[in-house]
Amino acid sequence: MKLNPIFTNSPWIQLESLLQKKLYSNYFIVVDENTEIHCLGIVIQHIKDYNSKLIKIPQGESNKSIETCNLLWNELIEKGVDRKSVIFALGGGVLCDLVGFCSATMLRGIDFFYIPTTLMAMVDASIGGKCGVNFLHFKNQIGVFTLPIAIVIDPIFLKTLSQRHLKNGIVEMLKHTLLKETNLDAQILNRSLHCNLDQIIESIDFKKSIVEKDFKETKLRKILNFGHTIGHAIETYSLKDGRDYLHGECVAVGMICELYISAALYNWDKAILNEICDFLRPFTNQFKISEFDFATIIEYLKIDKKTQFGTPSFSLLEQMGKPVTEIKVSEALIVKSLEFYSN
Amino acid sequence: MKLNPIFTNSPWIQLESLLQKKLYSNYFIVVDENTEIHCLGIVIQHIKDYNSKLIKIPQGESNKSIETCNLLWNELIEKGVDRKSVIFALGGGVLCDLVGFCSATMLRGIDFFYIPTTLMAMVDASIGGKCGVNFLHFKNQIGVFTLPIAIVIDPIFLKTLSQRHLKNGIVEMLKHTLLKETNLDAQILNRSLHCNLDQIIESIDFKKSIVEKDFKETKLRKILNFGHTIGHAIETYSLKDGRDYLHGECVAVGMICELYISAALYNWDKAILNEICDFLRPFTNQFKISEFDFATIIEYLKIDKKTQFGTPSFSLLEQMGKPVTEIKVSEALIVKSLEFYSN
Repeated sequence: MKLNPIFTNSPWIQLESLLQKKLYSNYFIVVDENTEIHCLGIVIQHIKDYNSKLIKIPQGESNKSIETCNLLWNELIEKGVDRKSVIFALGGGVLCDLVGFCSATMLRGIDFFYIPTTLMAMVDASIGGKCGVNFLHFKNQIGVFTLPIAIVIDPIFLKTLSQRHLKNGIVEMLKHTLLKETNLDAQILNRSLHCNLDQIIESIDFKKSIVEKDFKETKLRKILNFGHTIGHAIETYSLKDGRDYLHGECVAVGMICELYISAALYNWDKAILNEICDFLRPFTNQFKISEFDFATIIEYLKIDKKTQFGTPSFSLLEQMGKPVTEIKVSEALIVKSLEFYSN
Repeated sequence: MKLNPIFTNSPWIQLESLLQKKLYSNYFIVVDENTEIHCLGIVIQHIKDYNSKLIKIPQGESNKSIETCNLLWNELIEKGVDRKSVIFALGGGVLCDLVGFCSATMLRGIDFFYIPTTLMAMVDASIGGKCGVNFLHFKNQIGVFTLPIAIVIDPIFLKTLSQRHLKNGIVEMLKHTLLKETNLDAQILNRSLHCNLDQIIESIDFKKSIVEKDFKETKLRKILNFGHTIGHAIETYSLKDGRDYLHGECVAVGMICELYISAALYNWDKAILNEICDFLRPFTNQFKISEFDFATIIEYLKIDKKTQFGTPSFSLLEQMGKPVTEIKVSEALIVKSLEFYSN
């Protein structure tokens, strides 16, 4: 299945030319507090002829909820949404995921575009058609697979990001690197740190190639869940605790744990494990896990979407660039991986 | 696009044989207060080997809401739902629409079956993949197109229905008859009143043939909206008023109005118009519209899903068996049609 266009070269010219071919009845731009201030001006400049209507929603992972969907659906209806309307999602991964879901379900589906403003959203969240929201603190429990009409990638938005949010996105770029590079060295790992347009396109192209072969995640696409089984449990733990860590920070913790599990199951050279994990540690934002909470995290693992028949399913690395999926892991080994991370 | 199977002959044997081929982790049956008492026993008998878990949701159009979805998603998570789970929706149109939507969005989509227990759900609501809920009293504003794995049609459930609920379903059968029969006579109209298995299958087959040619309702499928533009506005009016009329009752009102509009626009013989409308009137449950509310109903028309660029779009009949779609109608003529109904 071919994904819809991702505009990376002259993205705004491509967007404008596409909009000229379509006749929409209403143009909505959805922003949050940050993108309204830092990014909206750039977008308005390019779609100024369309008399667009602005909708602002609250930001952050803790607002990625059905309650925020209710706010957005409500505003859309009040502002006259119909089936010929179009929505532009201007924001990071949380906003894109939520706006995609609301668009896909409003009047059984209206057109939408993603304009990702964070590195995380550019290289990961906006790519691949997964959209949805959290429920009861559990990650992405409610959602659908639906593609935007197109995605507009403009690295100019990265200039508005803090170092913390840049690092958040680099984590997913590093994941893509670990999944595809068989001969990993420091130079290759360091390349991801630049996060320039070439690196972004390389990361997008990798994810796109996987998703196009297995859109509904029946098998191959599961490799992209590397780091995300424990990562999502960590994120749930953080949300429940009211800590609001970023997705990439939790996934960095998850990747370190799942690298440890991979190394244990597939007899890796310890030096390689330590080298990669040392590289990843600065991306965790020093996430602390009390050892008294290991059991709680294991409970959260069981409610993960990847859990089937009561057992969480892991995507691991047999070695660098050799992902494997649907691996069962003992609770004892999961605990050891959390200890490895914590020490 | 081919629709998924609809089991009408030996439906339970077909269901059991399908279930034997699939391995599910959890079997959920969703019921409401009525179907728990009158229908659950029959279902349990046929899937007794599967240790199914029961979830009860509140019944009625006024509970077809995101709030009820929240209840259902919550219970599913608490009872251990995972991606290999399956849900059986045991109920009428409201329950099927809501459970279909919750299943399609739970963990980005899990398998579900419809076991419609009302005539309305058998011949209409369960067929064609439309599912969703009302929002702010507006009909089916939030939803998706998703098909159940299969639909189990057993007319035995009709024995549990009141005369009012039978009439509710007959309205949609009459609509199908008006859409397809070019030589309408009293005998043909009367046939729909029997609502035996043959009539049910005939009605399902008609809807199925239309939906398979235009699943996402880009053109042809719109003919099925005959009676539903004004019908949905009437239903919104009824919901806002707290009157909780049945869908078919509102659609009967809508059909009478839209027959009047069709007759006016396409110069029908008045006698035919009156004959059909006299036939339909007993199905409206004497729905009263104050002439002071005509303006309100016209406002509701504009928020209908079929409205585009601010103008409601009608599906009408050029003559019997000759449906036409995307017709604009003046407000004056809509008012006249409401007067025609009310007199």
